[in-house]
Amino acid sequence: MRIVTIEQFRDEKKRKNIRDDVDVDQTVLEIIRHVQKDGDNELRTYTEQFDGIRLAEIKVSEEEFEEAQALVTQPFIDSLRRAMRNIQAFHEVQKEQSWFTTSDDGILLGQKVTPMESVGVYVPGGKASYPSTVLMNVIPAKIAGVKKIAITTPPRRDGKVDPHVLVAAMETGVNVVYKVGGAQAIAALAYGTETVQKVVKIVGPGNVYVARAKKWVFGDVAIDMIAGPSEICVLADDSAVPRFVAADLLSQAEHDERATAICITTSKEFAESLKDEIEQQMKSVDRMDVIEKSITDNGRIIVVNALAEAFELVNELAPEHLQLMIDNPLDQLRFIQNAGAIFIGNYSPEVLGDYMAGPNHTLPTSGTARFSSPLGVYDFMKKSSVIQYSAQALESVTDAIITLAEAERLTAHANSIRVRKVDGNAQ
Amino acid sequence: MRIVTIEQFRDEKKRKNIRDDVDVDQTVLEIIRHVQKDGDNELRTYTEQFDGIRLAEIKVSEEEFEEAQALVTQPFIDSLRRAMRNIQAFHEVQKEQSWFTTSDDGILLGQKVTPMESVGVYVPGGKASYPSTVLMNVIPAKIAGVKKIAITTPPRRDGKVDPHVLVAAMETGVNVVYKVGGAQAIAALAYGTETVQKVVKIVGPGNVYVARAKKWVFGDVAIDMIAGPSEICVLADDSAVPRFVAADLLSQAEHDERATAICITTSKEFAESLKDEIEQQMKSVDRMDVIEKSITDNGRIIVVNALAEAFELVNELAPEHLQLMIDNPLDQLRFIQNAGAIFIGNYSPEVLGDYMAGPNHTLPTSGTARFSSPLGVYDFMKKSSVIQYSAQALESVTDAIITLAEAERLTAHANSIRVRKVDGNAQ
Repeated sequence: MRIVTIEQFRDEKKRKNIRDDVDVDQTVLEIIRHVQKDGDNELRTYTEQFDGIRLAEIKVSEEEFEEAQALVTQPFIDSLRRAMRNIQAFHEVQKEQSWFTTSDDGILLGQKVTPMESVGVYVPGGKASYPSTVLMNVIPAKIAGVKKIAITTPPRRDGKVDPHVLVAAMETGVNVVYKVGGAQAIAALAYGTETVQKVVKIVGPGNVYVARAKKWVFGDVAIDMIAGPSEICVLADDSAVPRFVAADLLSQAEHDERATAICITTSKEFAESLKDEIEQQMKSVDRMDVIEKSITDNGRIIVVNALAEAFELVNELAPEHLQLMIDNPLDQLRFIQNAGAIFIGNYSPEVLGDYMAGPNHTLPTSGTARFSSPLGVYDFMKKSSVIQYSAQALESVTDAIITLAEAERLTAHANSIRVRKVDGNAQ
Repeated sequence: MRIVTIEQFRDEKKRKNIRDDVDVDQTVLEIIRHVQKDGDNELRTYTEQFDGIRLAEIKVSEEEFEEAQALVTQPFIDSLRRAMRNIQAFHEVQKEQSWFTTSDDGILLGQKVTPMESVGVYVPGGKASYPSTVLMNVIPAKIAGVKKIAITTPPRRDGKVDPHVLVAAMETGVNVVYKVGGAQAIAALAYGTETVQKVVKIVGPGNVYVARAKKWVFGDVAIDMIAGPSEICVLADDSAVPRFVAADLLSQAEHDERATAICITTSKEFAESLKDEIEQQMKSVDRMDVIEKSITDNGRIIVVNALAEAFELVNELAPEHLQLMIDNPLDQLRFIQNAGAIFIGNYSPEVLGDYMAGPNHTLPTSGTARFSSPLGVYDFMKKSSVIQYSAQALESVTDAIITLAEAERLTAHANSIRVRKVDGNAQ
């Protein structure tokens, strides 16, 4: 992995250009329109085209759920349940409450918090299997109080869904799983088909077609953030263990050739030994090709002169995952403005957060931590303002409202207050 | 205004089709690219083209701020300040706190809440003037702790900005106001120019070009909801006052020909007297043309058989503004799932919420209240998860994590735990 200065690193980063993947968008829009028009038929056609299987049933059957349970190991189920308990405990704290205030003159103001009616969770298929995606998306929705939760995921070539995903669905209490992937799955969840019930919000990661489809249906339904390639940024000083940091960087690189693994360090010596350690460990990894490309393209060790400079760069990058492997990391937390999740100390590797710690692993990528939060219970609840004024309370603000309404030249607005003014005195 | 049954009303609503205003998008994308490439020059060109004025300075000057103060009345300033106090009081309650939990075995988990660095507020220009837009967007951002707040608004043909807007900006403590509107303003805020500083989030209402531009830059920056035409839904029984309801419906219709004013009532008699009252009041309104078109196209009085049916329809519509003008309205609140803001009783007209009550007037439109909330302080803060495990705590979950990582076939993930396992015992 290359060692660079902060100046060299900043030079490497080019100005970002607006994304308008025109070809992808044309394909995606055509798929969406077809699914809107011809529902299940189109789902079957596209699934045959993209996943290489003609589906008899779009929905996973009772039998398939039972079959799945027989196909996974007991250690897997035990580990899954342990993760579930941790994820539930953390997310319970996020649940928001309705609130209101009252005043003597008859004013009640507040916000009513209500769960969304229905949510669709997209779970990627293909090479890997993602039971953890099921947990991280379904559990917060459940805690929010969402009644209808459905999962959609591309089928394998044998027409089955990965058993780990099905078991995770069962464990979280979801019994509606559709064998549909890609943009067609997003269209089905957004607009509904004979089999697929339309939902209010769509969450979950996916490839570029899924991401663009989510961007297009956004507004008709809610979506979570649009996830880019995974990133890790390790901030390390001499107190960090090169062997740990190397393993953590490689674990991110494993996800995707476009994944980014960066280490920012104040120590030239640490940079050197980390470089050696990475080269050592790379000899023994699986998925060598992916990891090598990701490390070569996006992996960097950045040597800075002081921690202050490091924090500045971190806030500039707003990394999805940040590991603070420095002296007294908790004391330094206040300097971190932008990061999806912050892992503190030598024994809190990012992988711990992927599965087990409890906080959500759906995190803002590509610098969006400047304005986005981890997925949470708050993403599945919404608020309604509540306003009650008495005749007397309204009377006391009548003139002020009329003044402002007329400043905005909205006379019918002023009138809706005036009609009450007359009457208001009589009450 | 036409009186219809719930069945007739549902028939009228056609299936929604996905929006891809191709022509608008092409224009918008071209504007965005030009502004990205040639900054201020393009801002001047487009402002000349769309607003009919060649700008010397893009930024409002000290002198113009002072000039504005001289141009507005004292009653306006007093009313504005009164509104500000109410808006501040309500939004203070929304401020979120960081939190964490700890456990004996050395686990610290939590979420750090951080304000966004910078926000751009789009304030529409044209026919009307929108000082209230300034208050409703700037105040929550200020309370969240956003340091850099800038306003952008199209200039008038004389190159000036509406004085009410400038005074509102000053009162809320914003001294950066750009004389730029349309898609070019959104592009400037998203990517920056020589004069305009790029921001992390863009909020505020606008025309279709502004809305589409926001949709395109979404992802590179955060945006608030994309607002459609304004809507009011009044749920009324015999306890409601036709004169009040009529005035409230007309006040919405005044906004826009595409605005929607609906009354759902359980009383045929009320429906009839409301119809008459509306015809009466329509004789004396300004902006007759706008109101007439809006009422004819979208205004309906829907007679239902029971309140239960009314609540069902309300939740189906998820109106931006809902007025509950029925017996014991607070008792009925629990039946409302989807609404932007709920106005309770005969003396809480929607107009009260536009300016004075305190809750935000930026509300989800077009049924998006199914999944969106009113603009609030929470829209200007974001969360970072915080995870700290001790060596011992990590040791206790090591096997479970490795099991899950291997189920997802991510061996480098498993390795980032393994390297610590060995060492973990030694600590």
